[in-house]
Amino acid sequence: MAARGEKIDLPVHLARRYLEPGPIVLLSSRRGEERNIMTLGWHTIMEFSPSLVGCMISSGNHSFQLIRDSGECVINLPTTALTDQVVGIGNTCGAAIDKFATFGLTAEPARRVAAPLVGECHAHFECRLFDDALVERYNFFIFEVVEARVRRSPRHPQTLHYTGDGVFVVAGKTISRRALFTPDKL
Amino acid sequence: MAARGEKIDLPVHLARRYLEPGPIVLLSSRRGEERNIMTLGWHTIMEFSPSLVGCMISSGNHSFQLIRDSGECVINLPTTALTDQVVGIGNTCGAAIDKFATFGLTAEPARRVAAPLVGECHAHFECRLFDDALVERYNFFIFEVVEARVRRSPRHPQTLHYTGDGVFVVAGKTISRRALFTPDKL
Repeated sequence: MAARGEKIDLPVHLARRYLEPGPIVLLSSRRGEERNIMTLGWHTIMEFSPSLVGCMISSGNHSFQLIRDSGECVINLPTTALTDQVVGIGNTCGAAIDKFATFGLTAEPARRVAAPLVGECHAHFECRLFDDALVERYNFFIFEVVEARVRRSPRHPQTLHYTGDGVFVVAGKTISRRALFTPDKL
Repeated sequence: MAARGEKIDLPVHLARRYLEPGPIVLLSSRRGEERNIMTLGWHTIMEFSPSLVGCMISSGNHSFQLIRDSGECVINLPTTALTDQVVGIGNTCGAAIDKFATFGLTAEPARRVAAPLVGECHAHFECRLFDDALVERYNFFIFEVVEARVRRSPRHPQTLHYTGDGVFVVAGKTISRRALFTPDKL
């Protein structure tokens, strides 16, 4: 059995469990020897199977070209334990610094993409570019989640949700209404 | 001065304050005499100005055709006080019932669209279709927020964030790191 901090495989169609609530995520990317991390709050689930996630990646970000050229990234889910790293990553530029080194984060190998995982995060969604139809017009990338791993516990970690102006709201407390759902709506 | 429950205008570029955290929202729509409400968790901010929001509206929803034909909707933000209504709306079909009447919600006139507001919600974002390039392929609508109103208080209400399987996480407690942001990143 996996220990508390150990990570286990997650079926890719369950990415929604972690991403649909709308948390701030860390996108990690790699192009050759270059690697980077950026914070992202503008994303949405688009489909269960294939497991699609749409992400707005402003072309002003250093990560944009790494992801555009490699067609890959990893969506990593930080918890509130990483609040200061999330803010630091969002307020610095990867052209000038190595964000893994600067913020004391561990680059771990992914399984199906060349981009590294951010080891300290709660969950990792390895992504390949699925459709770039709206990249030129909106910087909107549609990715397919091809591999997912997650800490076994807790099932609902405390996550950060950005409101602008330096303020995050925290989610984590749960409300279940499972008994009121029709099976096809769960 | 607006009373606590009173609603005030919000500059449309600040829609991100309420939608970027990724809450469950209620989409209200109208086509002639028909009106409907649906729950939605698959959305993302796409731009500040124009104020753009991307929404995945499955074509299986009764609301899909009302929104497709009218090119309008209102994104309403429910708080945890409306949890049971949110679940009820998500588990019924507007072809069979009037959701405003069934769930005791008040249809209020919007200012710039024909779709009604859901009066009991905390905030309202009146939307017009901005780009339907991905509607056929993904059911992905890009809306422009043309008018926004919000309850003056609280600034950060308790919102519902869906994880699937009948379980919501609740956001509301705030963490500010404003002092650590560079001005252009706020």
